Amino acid sequence: MSLDGLKQLLGPGGYVDDPAEMVPYLTEWRDRWQGDSPLIARPRTTTDVASVMAYCAAHGLAVVPQGGHTGLCGGAMPHSGAGEIVLSLSRLNRVRGIDPQGFTMTLEAGCTLAAAQQTAEQADRLFPLSLASEGSAQIGGVLSTNAGGNAVLRYGNARDLVLGLEVVLADGRIWNGLRGLRKDNTGYDLKQLFVGSEGTLGIITAAVLKLFPAARQRETTLVAVPDADAAVRLLGLARELSGDRVSSFELMPRIGLEFVITHMDGRDPMETASPWYVLIDLTTAAAGTDLGEAMQALLERALERELITDAVVAASETQRDALWRLRESLSESQKYEGGSIKHDISVPIARIPEFLRLATAAVADRIPGIRPVPFGHMGDGNIHFNLSQPVGMDRRAFLDRWEEINVLVHDIAASLDGSISAEHGVGQLKVAEIVRYKTDVEMDLMRRVKQALDPHGLLNPGKVLAAAGRNGPDA
Amino acid sequence: MSLDGLKQLLGPGGYVDDPAEMVPYLTEWRDRWQGDSPLIARPRTTTDVASVMAYCAAHGLAVVPQGGHTGLCGGAMPHSGAGEIVLSLSRLNRVRGIDPQGFTMTLEAGCTLAAAQQTAEQADRLFPLSLASEGSAQIGGVLSTNAGGNAVLRYGNARDLVLGLEVVLADGRIWNGLRGLRKDNTGYDLKQLFVGSEGTLGIITAAVLKLFPAARQRETTLVAVPDADAAVRLLGLARELSGDRVSSFELMPRIGLEFVITHMDGRDPMETASPWYVLIDLTTAAAGTDLGEAMQALLERALERELITDAVVAASETQRDALWRLRESLSESQKYEGGSIKHDISVPIARIPEFLRLATAAVADRIPGIRPVPFGHMGDGNIHFNLSQPVGMDRRAFLDRWEEINVLVHDIAASLDGSISAEHGVGQLKVAEIVRYKTDVEMDLMRRVKQALDPHGLLNPGKVLAAAGRNGPDA
Repeated sequence: MSLDGLKQLLGPGGYVDDPAEMVPYLTEWRDRWQGDSPLIARPRTTTDVASVMAYCAAHGLAVVPQGGHTGLCGGAMPHSGAGEIVLSLSRLNRVRGIDPQGFTMTLEAGCTLAAAQQTAEQADRLFPLSLASEGSAQIGGVLSTNAGGNAVLRYGNARDLVLGLEVVLADGRIWNGLRGLRKDNTGYDLKQLFVGSEGTLGIITAAVLKLFPAARQRETTLVAVPDADAAVRLLGLARELSGDRVSSFELMPRIGLEFVITHMDGRDPMETASPWYVLIDLTTAAAGTDLGEAMQALLERALERELITDAVVAASETQRDALWRLRESLSESQKYEGGSIKHDISVPIARIPEFLRLATAAVADRIPGIRPVPFGHMGDGNIHFNLSQPVGMDRRAFLDRWEEINVLVHDIAASLDGSISAEHGVGQLKVAEIVRYKTDVEMDLMRRVKQALDPHGLLNPGKVLAAAGRNGPDA
Repeated sequence: MSLDGLKQLLGPGGYVDDPAEMVPYLTEWRDRWQGDSPLIARPRTTTDVASVMAYCAAHGLAVVPQGGHTGLCGGAMPHSGAGEIVLSLSRLNRVRGIDPQGFTMTLEAGCTLAAAQQTAEQADRLFPLSLASEGSAQIGGVLSTNAGGNAVLRYGNARDLVLGLEVVLADGRIWNGLRGLRKDNTGYDLKQLFVGSEGTLGIITAAVLKLFPAARQRETTLVAVPDADAAVRLLGLARELSGDRVSSFELMPRIGLEFVITHMDGRDPMETASPWYVLIDLTTAAAGTDLGEAMQALLERALERELITDAVVAASETQRDALWRLRESLSESQKYEGGSIKHDISVPIARIPEFLRLATAAVADRIPGIRPVPFGHMGDGNIHFNLSQPVGMDRRAFLDRWEEINVLVHDIAASLDGSISAEHGVGQLKVAEIVRYKTDVEMDLMRRVKQALDPHGLLNPGKVLAAAGRNGPDA
């Protein structure tokens, strides 16, 4: 099909169709998915996004919305040979407004998360969402995947930070739900449909986001804990004694720390080895010194109750950075130990110890010598249950068992009322797999919602849900 | 139609059809709506709710879910002569579980809000939702209306306190979304559809709710502020200096305080009269004395910046109760001053002063001598813009202008990107009115969602949306 109409509509600079220039849009950063597209649309305004969508709807063209392209599940990649138009939101990157007194800001979808944080900072406010990929990840993508990150325990997921949205619908109409209200009970809360639905129900073009007072005190400690049960009890104690000012609570196993020490120039922060560690951040917007006192009180009480065996408190920014680097290097340090099979599960917080026991035993039973390196956002019930290969095993032979091990681990998470994708989403990666864990009722409800908002299956087909409705209404 | 099948299914004690016994279910507490029903179903289990709904779907009977029946918009009242079955959730009132380490509890829909608070308290946890009607209001109703209340500024609306739901659908199937996860990105977040949709998309039968550490310190102060602009700036300062531990921030006008002093045995808490007052609560789960220091620091800084002119800090529980009684008596005190026309609007917080100026001028222009008593949850942008009649005006003549004044005030709220129903919902009361303020696109999206989940219009017809789909699919 000729796309001249679409090109004319977008104007020069509004699209990319040169194969060489298209490469960045069609290359996924972990190179896990292949895809192609006849055209990358790069509209600059919401009206232009609406025109593109209306054109595509009229011509039966499917559209794949794309932000910073940092996702882990292939949600922003078009399929090969499917003729899907990629709609990049990168040029919609204006700050429409900031209201420090009302603790809100209004940004377009193409603003990067880092730019969003800076916009808040310049007004002495905090936008708390923070991720490894924040320099590239864009607000539209962050919202449409309901991103998690490092401050969920305190501030919630991306969903919890949205007050209003502007969305282009499957037929090209614009829904203006760009309200900055803390309370509005005048009907269905439509914005919830678009957050976390990965561009399959509409294209987010702008958002009103919540802000918070900027942090003035921050206390960081790394503690040694005897086991995961102690870590769960420590989390409750920390929330109580700090007055719910825990912003991070990150679990790390000894083996992960050893990988970092061995491969990443890390230093062992304590004299005696411990099977587990927790990195804790307390933060508050209030000035003063009371947070340090709260941290001290927490550590004393935790020692008394034998929830911790040792602790290192960061006395400077340098020490804080060094402690956080241990945590942030975990994933990379695994690369030096051969192949790694990854999971992004969550369970109810109190069931984390049970999950770790069951899953560790199950994978060891299946692949003797396998080395689990479970770490992550324990305060959110979210464990990245990553598995390093046995020493000496062939890397490829280990990685070939990825799906088998995934099923094993995911079945355990599901048996504990958990999730097989806590923060990364579904994308292409888990479309088939979620069907295994969701009831028929739930799948039917999801399909009904898709059918209601995108009856011809033009929006990001085959993501989240299989593309049954692509060429017409579902039965 | 004979309802014998339904009666048989419910068994003795499972329904009410004696006209005298039906009265409480069919009487709205403000006596604003009339309605009748052939049968009040009172199932005890989710399975029974599902059977009732399946029966009603098979026989084309509409169902009105009802909780504590404390709503303000007629959402739980059946229509007159429509043959709608009332489905009372009161007997589904079990605590299914509490997980203090995981900070969650699982309750059935019929538990009262007060029982929910007590359940949390017994585990040394806080369930922060709090409303005037909490002794009668039930969890199912509170969630399906996305209730607000006194702690929204700190903990959010009811929506923000839900982790999972169990819901009976229009066709009698049960959706088990009763997950206690902080993070789960495996598809559309279906629970969001049922929260705040007033029983028009499904019947909530149980919920997993978030808990928080119990409060250990609480500081209460009443401050005199020169104007609403100062109050807005004071809110920002309070959030900053307290480290975001403001749990209530309630605006009161001088005239309201005078009504309370005159009619409700209140005492003027300050020597000099001020045009406006704000009641502020700070709370924290941490033990200690630092919150009192934070309050002092706030008051000193606010005086310096001329945001407040006077302050009274509660030095005892008795004094705290006395200050809160001033706020809580506002609504009742108005009764002694004749008729009152009420509003439940919200606007972006920073636009509250503008709203107050415009709305006060507009109503005075329309009814000279009218006495606005605007008060409420300023921290949420939610003002109960209540209007006492002019002294000496005929009460009936004043109240007859209710709708005219509503339109005037709501138009102003809408012009400031506000909401005409911040926390009370739509019910029957505002079904026609929301159409005036929502775009065609938004109404269309709402109808599509309704059609997707309740294609035959059996669930609470005529609430939130006009009952177009009652007897068949929408066009």
